[in-house]
Amino acid sequence: MTYTLCLLRHGESDWNAKNLFTGWVDVPLSEKGRAEAVYSGELIRDVGLRPDVVHTSLLRRAISTSNIALDVADRHWIPVRRSWRLNERHYGALQGKDKKATLQEFGEEQFMTWRRSYDVPPPAIEPDTQFSQAGDVRYADLGDEAPRTECLKDVIARFLPYWNDAIVPDLTANKTVLVVAHGNSLRALVKHLDNVSDGDIVGLNIPTGMPLVYRLDENLVPTVAGGEYLDPHAAAAAAEAVANQGR
Amino acid sequence: MTYTLCLLRHGESDWNAKNLFTGWVDVPLSEKGRAEAVYSGELIRDVGLRPDVVHTSLLRRAISTSNIALDVADRHWIPVRRSWRLNERHYGALQGKDKKATLQEFGEEQFMTWRRSYDVPPPAIEPDTQFSQAGDVRYADLGDEAPRTECLKDVIARFLPYWNDAIVPDLTANKTVLVVAHGNSLRALVKHLDNVSDGDIVGLNIPTGMPLVYRLDENLVPTVAGGEYLDPHAAAAAAEAVANQGR
Repeated sequence: MTYTLCLLRHGESDWNAKNLFTGWVDVPLSEKGRAEAVYSGELIRDVGLRPDVVHTSLLRRAISTSNIALDVADRHWIPVRRSWRLNERHYGALQGKDKKATLQEFGEEQFMTWRRSYDVPPPAIEPDTQFSQAGDVRYADLGDEAPRTECLKDVIARFLPYWNDAIVPDLTANKTVLVVAHGNSLRALVKHLDNVSDGDIVGLNIPTGMPLVYRLDENLVPTVAGGEYLDPHAAAAAAEAVANQGR
Repeated sequence: MTYTLCLLRHGESDWNAKNLFTGWVDVPLSEKGRAEAVYSGELIRDVGLRPDVVHTSLLRRAISTSNIALDVADRHWIPVRRSWRLNERHYGALQGKDKKATLQEFGEEQFMTWRRSYDVPPPAIEPDTQFSQAGDVRYADLGDEAPRTECLKDVIARFLPYWNDAIVPDLTANKTVLVVAHGNSLRALVKHLDNVSDGDIVGLNIPTGMPLVYRLDENLVPTVAGGEYLDPHAAAAAAEAVANQGR
């Protein structure tokens, strides 16, 4: 008896394609991203995975990926849960900036610290600037809890309550759970599941549009560390490409 | 102080376009239907209506309409509730049959009785036939409660518990509620809201893709009987076309 959890990072967005830091800016999927979402739905359908419930972030690129993939997999009708706690890492003042230009301006060390350090967030975004979410009604209830920048450690801290309060109860009710989210919120989840060290999580990359399935034992420990991609060859190539972003 | 309820019938489906009885058969939107969904989202956005929660049926044409319209209206992130109680009327043994051929085969009186009578359902569909939902996992929990045919009276009977238990609590919590459903489940809702007689509901047609807004007083009585279409001229023309289906 195992629980089944499927993780899916949204397909390529317009800003992935343009190589911009995105974070909480609510950009749409690119055409390629929509095709990735279709493919992920086909994989889910073809292996006979049947999600009983889906959890998404509040961001369009995850929501559209979920809508498209579930429609293809003929599971469009399942219950939907959404939470800001599944959002991408808030990239602070880097939101909207070009990754390559940022690398050139600040150098490799600072760039990689902002992108991948566990506990150093970028500078906070100013509330009155273009890519701030200060006036976004979907976060109005958060008040002062709404982040203006985050490091991965911050993402884990705000993700874990949702894991424990919303996702685990679905799993232990024997539901097959699909989580459609983002590079960093899924890294937070994988770090928690596989007990990855603060150092090792830096090198872990999750590709877009590749369903990653965990079977969990009764203690919610993965039966296969790191889970299993439904299309392992494509996933390995895509993860390599993610690692090289900004080069 | 009023409560705000917006009703939206899904855009044209492949089978609306082909003039087939659809019921619970899970057909997709046509290209025209997708365009209608975009337009309904634009109307919702342009009048400044901001749904806080959406309720849909379990059928793809309503779910896709909801997904498309909310994305256009920048409300893709709101909570989603789904229920079979918002499904289209189950058309029984007529599901999958051509409307015009059915009219010619059975004559005007029988045809209009099946389409529009309040309390006479079509013959029940056989479980082992092509357009039955007997093996559909999304209705597995219903057991013997799963309908094999319905008249409008049956639709009202299974819709009202959902209205009282799921939609009314959202309204009285001062949420702007969007309901994306079907010709007959929305007629059931309108009949209840406007206290339409069993006779008069026969002549009431709801067009596809036209948001219909009700403002309800504290007793959930409409402040304007029949509600108000966001695009009244287009809605009147479309309702006329619905009334002439099968001719």
